[in-house]
Amino acid sequence: MFIHLTFLLSLIFILISLKVQLINSLIMQQPFPPLKNDRLIRVAKGLKTDKLPVWIMRQAGRYLPEFQELRREYSFFEICQTPKLACEATLMPLKRFNLDAAIIFSDILVIPQALGMTVEMQPGVGPVLPKPLTIENMKMLQVQGAVSRLQYVGDAITTTRYALKGEVPLFGFSGAPWTLMGYMIEGGGSKTMSKAKKWLYCHPEASKQLLDILTEVITEFLLLQIEHGAQIVQVFDSSAEYLNRQLYFKYCLPYLRKIAYNVKRRIRDTKMDVPLVIFAKGAHFCLEEMESLGYDVVGIDWTLDPEKVGNLFRDKNVTLQGNLDPCALYAPKEELIKMTMQMIKQFGTDRLIVNLGHGIYPDADVEAVKTFVDAVHAIELK
Amino acid sequence: MFIHLTFLLSLIFILISLKVQLINSLIMQQPFPPLKNDRLIRVAKGLKTDKLPVWIMRQAGRYLPEFQELRREYSFFEICQTPKLACEATLMPLKRFNLDAAIIFSDILVIPQALGMTVEMQPGVGPVLPKPLTIENMKMLQVQGAVSRLQYVGDAITTTRYALKGEVPLFGFSGAPWTLMGYMIEGGGSKTMSKAKKWLYCHPEASKQLLDILTEVITEFLLLQIEHGAQIVQVFDSSAEYLNRQLYFKYCLPYLRKIAYNVKRRIRDTKMDVPLVIFAKGAHFCLEEMESLGYDVVGIDWTLDPEKVGNLFRDKNVTLQGNLDPCALYAPKEELIKMTMQMIKQFGTDRLIVNLGHGIYPDADVEAVKTFVDAVHAIELK
Repeated sequence: MFIHLTFLLSLIFILISLKVQLINSLIMQQPFPPLKNDRLIRVAKGLKTDKLPVWIMRQAGRYLPEFQELRREYSFFEICQTPKLACEATLMPLKRFNLDAAIIFSDILVIPQALGMTVEMQPGVGPVLPKPLTIENMKMLQVQGAVSRLQYVGDAITTTRYALKGEVPLFGFSGAPWTLMGYMIEGGGSKTMSKAKKWLYCHPEASKQLLDILTEVITEFLLLQIEHGAQIVQVFDSSAEYLNRQLYFKYCLPYLRKIAYNVKRRIRDTKMDVPLVIFAKGAHFCLEEMESLGYDVVGIDWTLDPEKVGNLFRDKNVTLQGNLDPCALYAPKEELIKMTMQMIKQFGTDRLIVNLGHGIYPDADVEAVKTFVDAVHAIELK
Repeated sequence: MFIHLTFLLSLIFILISLKVQLINSLIMQQPFPPLKNDRLIRVAKGLKTDKLPVWIMRQAGRYLPEFQELRREYSFFEICQTPKLACEATLMPLKRFNLDAAIIFSDILVIPQALGMTVEMQPGVGPVLPKPLTIENMKMLQVQGAVSRLQYVGDAITTTRYALKGEVPLFGFSGAPWTLMGYMIEGGGSKTMSKAKKWLYCHPEASKQLLDILTEVITEFLLLQIEHGAQIVQVFDSSAEYLNRQLYFKYCLPYLRKIAYNVKRRIRDTKMDVPLVIFAKGAHFCLEEMESLGYDVVGIDWTLDPEKVGNLFRDKNVTLQGNLDPCALYAPKEELIKMTMQMIKQFGTDRLIVNLGHGIYPDADVEAVKTFVDAVHAIELK
């Protein structure tokens, strides 16, 4: 009787799965609406446009009253994991501002979750992983099937692509190997990332093993997002700032290069042409190396001087993205416009995607975001 | 009767004060023991030595079991405020390691305290200022008499100078204006310093007013420490990393320059020759400017490449100080020695004070500190 019930349940499950797959493939067969505003994609590929494209890291987040409203009903990860809700959050900033891109509402810590780690989003604290990774429990990571457990991100992207109606391109994204390693070992944010760095100094082999696993999962995750409709993807190495040139050369650059190489190779086979973006916050010590990693766009954090970076990358085959200080959004309107104009002048308008130099802060003024976006679009390119 | 009692108590108080002053001046008249190991002072002034001097930022702190022991009996600020205890903590690392300097046990937040703000040291959190500074309550700052309320730091320095018996020179120090402003407005540490930065963008006049007050108090505080026996003083701009070049030029460099200029001018009158050190953590965007601020030594954080910095400062009239990653102390002994040697080779041995690139972390291995210090001293300079 027990065996029969199990068999029956399995059969029902298989049938449901088949049905879901069928519906999915039917959806996938229906082509996505054609892209109307292709400014950002063109500039990422080094082509000319009428105006500079602009978007904002974390644009679909805590500074928006309507997102706070949504958060009163659902937890952070409920929104991530429910395609309809993730789509809703993704579209929120586009209803307010004349942005040139959407970015799927998600989080870099969905990968540690898919690997079997618990991630909680604690109010006022940020992400907390109550059982951090240790050398001893590292083998517990559930690598097998991790990417398929991230199917919900793919689904959210597909849903959002249709909902966007081709208005602007949709970003997919992932955390970089070192950044994810940092959170997994520290059990959350840290002022120094010293526990994770301790691995780099004391356990180089285990570190490389972990970074290899993450590189593999990130590659497949980016491909999953691209297959499901992401038109550009960004890799966030938000914790680059905790390392120096030596460590970054050893434990970051090879993995970032491998991700770009493998994603590019695999999408070439499918004849898709999706630009890749790398944003390594605080990697001032490895700025020059970012150019040759295989990414089309290099994100620049706000601590870097646009003039210096502009000169450094002039005539190189990459687009720059950045880098207004998120705190500049606190400034009076006229001052904000002045700073935006000055930054663009210093970068130079060739191959530039305008953005902040870090994710927008929760207390940012919504009106200031509008001022910033409109100021960028006021510039007519020859 | 009441008036009589008050009068009597006042008289007793005045008599005690006079006695303390008398004892103090007697102590001050007794000259400090002559300096035996002058390596660090010589190198700070650009003179040759037999070996490279080495010390460690936060060397008298939480990584030492004997300090933890002391902390079980006294609160953090009790140790700071009691000259005998501050002296005891200051001497602790010197009993273990062959260091070339002592640094007075104190904290950068003693200035906000002297200005009337409450500062608590919360375990696992760090400093917390429960009533942060606002535009509205700024006028409550008790500027008058602030430096005299820091007399205990002077007394701790005097006590320690005698206790050191001239073994090594004694550092005094202060937080830099922007760093203190940051803590005062944020009410503690912050991931972004966005509240304090908001002042810079929205309230430039109030910001300048506050920075002016702090510059004045810091100058007088450094002079108080020098008068009481500090043989070298360091200014810590630990929060430089939150700013960019533009903000640092406007809100930090002029104040840092003013401090150096005024301290140098005032000590020149007294014919003392005390070197000044500036350490601006994360100021990679203003590195070149550090050379011409009037400080004898420029501290280099661990994110900077020693070779690049060494080349940049070669033949400039400053000494460099730095910059081993504090996490390198986690590495196996041989690896740690190798990294120390490589760093020194990259900096070059001319005008170099060896240190970590940031304060030592609480979980640092005591044996590793010994390995680091001894590795530096194993190098014989020609």
